[in-house]
Amino acid sequence: MPKFLNDPHDAIVESLRGFAHCHADEVVLNETPRYVRRRVPNPSKVSVISGGGSGHEPMHVGFVGVGMLDAAVPGEVFSSPSPEQILAAADAVGGEPGVLYLVKNYSGDVMNFEIAMEARGGASRRVLIEDDVAVENSTYSVGRRGVAGTLVVEKIAGAAAEQGADLAACAAVAEDAAARTRTMGVALGGCRAPTADRPNLEIRAGEMELGVGIHGEPGRRRAMLESADAIMSELLTPVLENLQSGSHDPVLLFVNGFGGTPLMELYILYDAASRALAAANIVVARSLVGNYVTSLEMPGASVTLTRISDRLLSYWDAPVRTPGLRWMA
Amino acid sequence: MPKFLNDPHDAIVESLRGFAHCHADEVVLNETPRYVRRRVPNPSKVSVISGGGSGHEPMHVGFVGVGMLDAAVPGEVFSSPSPEQILAAADAVGGEPGVLYLVKNYSGDVMNFEIAMEARGGASRRVLIEDDVAVENSTYSVGRRGVAGTLVVEKIAGAAAEQGADLAACAAVAEDAAARTRTMGVALGGCRAPTADRPNLEIRAGEMELGVGIHGEPGRRRAMLESADAIMSELLTPVLENLQSGSHDPVLLFVNGFGGTPLMELYILYDAASRALAAANIVVARSLVGNYVTSLEMPGASVTLTRISDRLLSYWDAPVRTPGLRWMA
Repeated sequence: MPKFLNDPHDAIVESLRGFAHCHADEVVLNETPRYVRRRVPNPSKVSVISGGGSGHEPMHVGFVGVGMLDAAVPGEVFSSPSPEQILAAADAVGGEPGVLYLVKNYSGDVMNFEIAMEARGGASRRVLIEDDVAVENSTYSVGRRGVAGTLVVEKIAGAAAEQGADLAACAAVAEDAAARTRTMGVALGGCRAPTADRPNLEIRAGEMELGVGIHGEPGRRRAMLESADAIMSELLTPVLENLQSGSHDPVLLFVNGFGGTPLMELYILYDAASRALAAANIVVARSLVGNYVTSLEMPGASVTLTRISDRLLSYWDAPVRTPGLRWMA
Repeated sequence: MPKFLNDPHDAIVESLRGFAHCHADEVVLNETPRYVRRRVPNPSKVSVISGGGSGHEPMHVGFVGVGMLDAAVPGEVFSSPSPEQILAAADAVGGEPGVLYLVKNYSGDVMNFEIAMEARGGASRRVLIEDDVAVENSTYSVGRRGVAGTLVVEKIAGAAAEQGADLAACAAVAEDAAARTRTMGVALGGCRAPTADRPNLEIRAGEMELGVGIHGEPGRRRAMLESADAIMSELLTPVLENLQSGSHDPVLLFVNGFGGTPLMELYILYDAASRALAAANIVVARSLVGNYVTSLEMPGASVTLTRISDRLLSYWDAPVRTPGLRWMA
């Protein structure tokens, strides 16, 4: 896994400089402490802040912009950001209506966001994202991990804040979206952090890791590679069970690539998911396919379902204008 | 390079079905002969059609939509579409104002588009895209290859057509954009087509292929891997020489990933390019970074510069709404 790097220890800051320069009309990078915020903050609305380890790009920094995040706090690759970073980001964008923190359920993230929230005080709420149905506890988490469903929660909570909902309402919408969202992933190989000398995960040719985490953490089992249809069925079944699939709500279907799988295959997986859901009489209200919540160059993908309500759908459909996700109403 | 597949021979059609289903509000797939067109054709304007081998997604099918292509014709992986496919696509979307064909300079594509144009007759123009400065002739081309700069030409010509320019004007704008656009790429590894049993390109650890084509064709030389800054300098130098860098026009800077390189590294390359261009007193008017003209999961990237004029800039900035590229005015 050779890489385009100067000094590997400068990879994140150089990448963020490039990112901020490329999207200078939309975002600003603060280098010390490190965070990315909207170019034009709007302190008259609730501020939505997320963050976590780097290496999942475009999440989170690519989701800063109108209709989604106000700021994002990137840690080192696959490592939590510090409380100082989180605090500085909150001070930069937070206004009178308060701050909503969207935190993926990893022990380091949970702890550091908590420290920052306590240190800062003021009106704030935190919503945990724990959408990964693969395992109950994991390398870095107590309870389910937060993975690709984070995008859904950030989009929906960001829209509510943009439309002027107050802090309690934004937190309730985020909680609702998080509770209705479940994900499971599969990896066909690992990835390598810029400063590491080996991949984070070794998978033999012809095998796969079912239920893998977005840092290459172990999933449910190592298995022989199967057809796209069979793999999708193994991913969808636990997701639907966990979502109480007896419900008649339509779903938002999100097929997410981990970075090393071409779009051609992501759409094959999406096609498999569409057919499987149609056969189960589940209506797909909206779809998203692409590399959004990645693990650097890891080959693999996840499927996320959100049992969508009319209210959440209107927030999902609301305009969003960020470097990584954009659409019009 | 394990893959998500059912029958490997069905990979393209299954992927296109997934793609068309996911983006059903914007595009329609015709399976036999195979092409993708806008859901709502506009026969009162010039129709812009492109196509070529599959495996470069989102190009071309992902660029079908308002402000860009009217139809795209996907061949097998890295193989030209047939004249029958091209003819059927042109019949489906072509109206009185005529058809502009945007063709990447590969012998098979050039021949098959020519056969289709002759068979169909009617008002039509063809513009060749040959932006790759790496080599003068190559495995599949006489003359320079058409690579990532194709996106720039398709965007600009599509905007001209959308705004009602006639066929001669659309062709002139496309020629102008193509003449002002140059690219060079580098690969750190190969990729594997769904029906192949080995990668298209073998690169030893610690080496790179400078000037690689988007099908893994040989470039200028195999070299030892260098720093991101040094690699960017080796890519930019021939691009600028070929573009007559004495010019004072600002440039559009496009750092394109080949599919297997994470966004983190693409932004490191973009940062390197920004610094190099600033040092050369070249103004970057617009930027684009991402995996747009890919070679399946190939790790690697290219840099494209367009010496942009005010007129071309206004077409670049015009709204575009396609599955693969979208922005508002």
